[in-house]
Amino acid sequence: MLRLSRLFVRTLRDDPADAEVPSHRLLVRAGYIRRAAPGGYTWLPLGWRVLRRVEEIVRREMDAIGAQEVHFPALLPRDVYEATGRWTEYGDNLFRLVDRKGADYLLGPTHEEMFTLLVKDFYSSYKDLPVSLYQIQTKYRDEARPRAGLLRGREFLMKDSYSFDIDDDGLSRSYAEHRDAYQRIFTALGLPYVVVRAMSGAMGGSMSEEFLSPVEAGEDTFVRCTACSYAANTEAVTTAGRPARDESSTPLTRIDTPDCATIDNVVGLLNREYPRTDRAWTSADTLKNVVLAVRQPDGATETLVVGVPGDREVDLKRLEAQLSPAALAPLDEAGFAAQTALVRGYIGPQILGASSATGIRYLCDPSVVAGSAWVTGANEHGVHVTGLVRGRDFTPDGEIEAVEVRSGDPCPVCGSALRIARGIEIGHVFQLGRKYADTLGLSVLDQNGRQVTVTMGSYGIGVSRAVAAIAEFAHDDLGLKWPRAVAPADVHVVIAGKPGDATTTAAESLCSDLERAGLEVILDDRTGVSPGVKFKDAELIGVPTIVIVGKSLADGTIEVRDRLTGARDNIAVAEAPAAVIGLCRGG
Amino acid sequence: MLRLSRLFVRTLRDDPADAEVPSHRLLVRAGYIRRAAPGGYTWLPLGWRVLRRVEEIVRREMDAIGAQEVHFPALLPRDVYEATGRWTEYGDNLFRLVDRKGADYLLGPTHEEMFTLLVKDFYSSYKDLPVSLYQIQTKYRDEARPRAGLLRGREFLMKDSYSFDIDDDGLSRSYAEHRDAYQRIFTALGLPYVVVRAMSGAMGGSMSEEFLSPVEAGEDTFVRCTACSYAANTEAVTTAGRPARDESSTPLTRIDTPDCATIDNVVGLLNREYPRTDRAWTSADTLKNVVLAVRQPDGATETLVVGVPGDREVDLKRLEAQLSPAALAPLDEAGFAAQTALVRGYIGPQILGASSATGIRYLCDPSVVAGSAWVTGANEHGVHVTGLVRGRDFTPDGEIEAVEVRSGDPCPVCGSALRIARGIEIGHVFQLGRKYADTLGLSVLDQNGRQVTVTMGSYGIGVSRAVAAIAEFAHDDLGLKWPRAVAPADVHVVIAGKPGDATTTAAESLCSDLERAGLEVILDDRTGVSPGVKFKDAELIGVPTIVIVGKSLADGTIEVRDRLTGARDNIAVAEAPAAVIGLCRGG
Repeated sequence: MLRLSRLFVRTLRDDPADAEVPSHRLLVRAGYIRRAAPGGYTWLPLGWRVLRRVEEIVRREMDAIGAQEVHFPALLPRDVYEATGRWTEYGDNLFRLVDRKGADYLLGPTHEEMFTLLVKDFYSSYKDLPVSLYQIQTKYRDEARPRAGLLRGREFLMKDSYSFDIDDDGLSRSYAEHRDAYQRIFTALGLPYVVVRAMSGAMGGSMSEEFLSPVEAGEDTFVRCTACSYAANTEAVTTAGRPARDESSTPLTRIDTPDCATIDNVVGLLNREYPRTDRAWTSADTLKNVVLAVRQPDGATETLVVGVPGDREVDLKRLEAQLSPAALAPLDEAGFAAQTALVRGYIGPQILGASSATGIRYLCDPSVVAGSAWVTGANEHGVHVTGLVRGRDFTPDGEIEAVEVRSGDPCPVCGSALRIARGIEIGHVFQLGRKYADTLGLSVLDQNGRQVTVTMGSYGIGVSRAVAAIAEFAHDDLGLKWPRAVAPADVHVVIAGKPGDATTTAAESLCSDLERAGLEVILDDRTGVSPGVKFKDAELIGVPTIVIVGKSLADGTIEVRDRLTGARDNIAVAEAPAAVIGLCRGG
Repeated sequence: MLRLSRLFVRTLRDDPADAEVPSHRLLVRAGYIRRAAPGGYTWLPLGWRVLRRVEEIVRREMDAIGAQEVHFPALLPRDVYEATGRWTEYGDNLFRLVDRKGADYLLGPTHEEMFTLLVKDFYSSYKDLPVSLYQIQTKYRDEARPRAGLLRGREFLMKDSYSFDIDDDGLSRSYAEHRDAYQRIFTALGLPYVVVRAMSGAMGGSMSEEFLSPVEAGEDTFVRCTACSYAANTEAVTTAGRPARDESSTPLTRIDTPDCATIDNVVGLLNREYPRTDRAWTSADTLKNVVLAVRQPDGATETLVVGVPGDREVDLKRLEAQLSPAALAPLDEAGFAAQTALVRGYIGPQILGASSATGIRYLCDPSVVAGSAWVTGANEHGVHVTGLVRGRDFTPDGEIEAVEVRSGDPCPVCGSALRIARGIEIGHVFQLGRKYADTLGLSVLDQNGRQVTVTMGSYGIGVSRAVAAIAEFAHDDLGLKWPRAVAPADVHVVIAGKPGDATTTAAESLCSDLERAGLEVILDDRTGVSPGVKFKDAELIGVPTIVIVGKSLADGTIEVRDRLTGARDNIAVAEAPAAVIGLCRGG
């Protein structure tokens, strides 16, 4: 029994100053977690219980698909991550350190390399495969902006598993098994989720999907088709193919555009001085050229210009996902100073391209289709051009998905409208393929005695993040509302009488009955705390069933509240244990 | 059921090259752990099961004394450890790192500071106390010499708990509760232990005891009295008080001792040229002066000379424990070169002392009692003195326990002979007192409304180390012999027939019965592996009960082997499930 008179918990009436999202606010206020470091949280007794329940559900389902649990160190030597390039590719996100002997170490962000080498160490034949291994382990990433409590921390608990198969069919099966297990896990956790196509980022590999929990607090943006089943992280959206346009008869015309360094200014000037006969000029007629600094993990930098229609924004996260592991930023003043060919506000692709005199690489969004004509800069101060045709007047070095996806954009599968939403990444399944096995030499003998490279999958669940994701759904204005499967206790019994009166005896007796039936009970036995404060704390802590032993005891009843539905019921004292047990078991 | 055909394990016939001690050798050979980094081990499925069983026993007993489980990050900001001085005092043993913003972090070696601040954050009244909090968490220490597998690693699992009390009596009670819980834990683990007095090292504080598991592989040396209950780590032994001697009538005499830089040479020369009439000179008549470099964590160094009787060695570990957090080493060549007053082989305390001309601090072991006369160097090449009397001819700056303790030395309590043994430190209980609370400002209001500083205890158990400590006891030449409470399974069933014959059916049926009864079963269902190899693996893996379904099945029996006693029994197939269940439950 958890007696609130002794339980190490303090509830707070006020939101912590740094809490932006409901889960962070409520987990701190209700005494589940406490900030210990930037991006590092201490689990207090109530939070630790929830985390362990989540962990047990994850473990149960991983065991059910035959995955075997192991546990690696977090502190790992550099050489293995050097072999796969991740020592460098992870960039600033990796915590690196040097030991007393001067050797380089890192704190593991994920363990692909270590698992690959372990299997290589043990297995040598197709007969040993398939095998799936997993761990539930503390991970470290030096996030640029740790935020939102448990949602983006620098130290967090993760379940990472890895499958090893002899061939692609095997990988597909292992992948499907993990995918199914993930669906069972999130369903058991009471956590709504959407499975979306994903980029694989610094992991390498091919097929990859994310499990996103769709809430506003999420950092990931994804699209869902309003008609078909297509869903994708916006980073991974491939825009629908568009037909080429033949606008090569449009004449290329220089126009003076003094003081027109913004698209609105150019469009305004065009409509005033060069009106179209068919319709007005709009920003969609312009080609916007965004100048970026691309920085590789090894420090190499490059200036890159990306062209998008003037009515769309560039989505740096999407670009970065495609250029991974490079990092992107708008070119800064010093960068512009070094690129004298680029006239800010008047940049056009005429002078760009890897093989041009400037040597500056130019990529454009697929919506800048072949044969299309554009208004854009003339690379001279105060001058633009109209009728600049792709393929006639400029040829990009390639295409890249660059525009910010919007609700209403066409689905790449069926063409219906996409809808945008935000979500929390709670799981990720990857078909890594042979990248790690190739690099680290993991091969086995097949049925014919030939060495074949093993193909791998990699599968992650943010265990600590899942606690916050559940809290994002499972709360109201009063506090948390835990699903029964992960609640820190089954019942929260409040003594709402005076110290030593009949309410104490009745509550203690009820709690004994509930504990004997195997229920986890919180008993608010605090003295010197008013019933009102106790009710508020019970609602804030958010155990699914709240029992109040108070005034109604004089009438021979206790009150049972359902924290999830808000329903209240008075139950005769004698029937209370059975009734509460029934609620908890049936719930 | 763990099927060896699928279980991720490989047993090795040969000892790993780097394994010095039985636990390391066998845990690796039996496929429980695998080296992943210097001082870092991966837990394989069998090892992980044992570790988790140990962890659960620790948790159960901590919960039973009302300690509450929390969980701190391992990656911690510098400032808190700076406040208590441990950022510096921990010296090279601390893993330090810098994040992407240039801020200093460490990997927590223990969490005194964090727990103190957490309680300060939550509690403000004597009514809140006592409280005990604990965590079972991965710890990091940059050991100079990681060795012996799990026995001294750089990343390891530890249970650390902390008690908070209003006064000394409360601390004594909390300390006693933890001490009792530790005894229950180690008994439950089947791990023999001795409780010995200990030094508190870098932790600060006063009363402190260690739980040592007495095996040869241990790094700690301790003494036990052969008559009374006195037991202490040799670092913490206080040698028995000795009466002062009055030898001040001995004349101080210079003698030429060319080429006598060793004690043996000096004693030989004395017996040849200056024989005593009462007895022969021995090395016990000489005063040996050992020159040390003392290095403080902040880098400050000092030359220190320590005097001990010439028949005893200096114990650097004991000295270091008393001079903690400073590190000690014999003075090197460069050090001697800088101390021209010190004539190697001919050093005497006549010219030493903090207030002497040399300014070199001189400490002596308590066995160099006041009034005693010695043969020692004259601080000139080729010259010694006899009859150098402490108090007349030299006065040390102080005493320090410096000599290596030997079996037969007198017990400081009863004077009987001490006996020396080696052990593994598996637990440690400290009365920290008010050191951390004072420094970090943890005080509460007492009954009279006065602010009083809280007094703390700190209690550790090496959870991963306990696995190795158990293995040090629980093995024989054939392999491991796990106590039932922590074994990775209850029963190990071997199919010792041909694939597809009756042994497979009988073994599978038995395993189903055992699993239904709630037992954990390993089934060796491998094909293409001989019965002999399977028997050897079963003995190596060391589950307490081994069942062999083989030849005797033709006679209607299976063989049940007790791995611990070696007993073998043939049991009728029909009675086997009940018999095996009985063995496991009763064991």
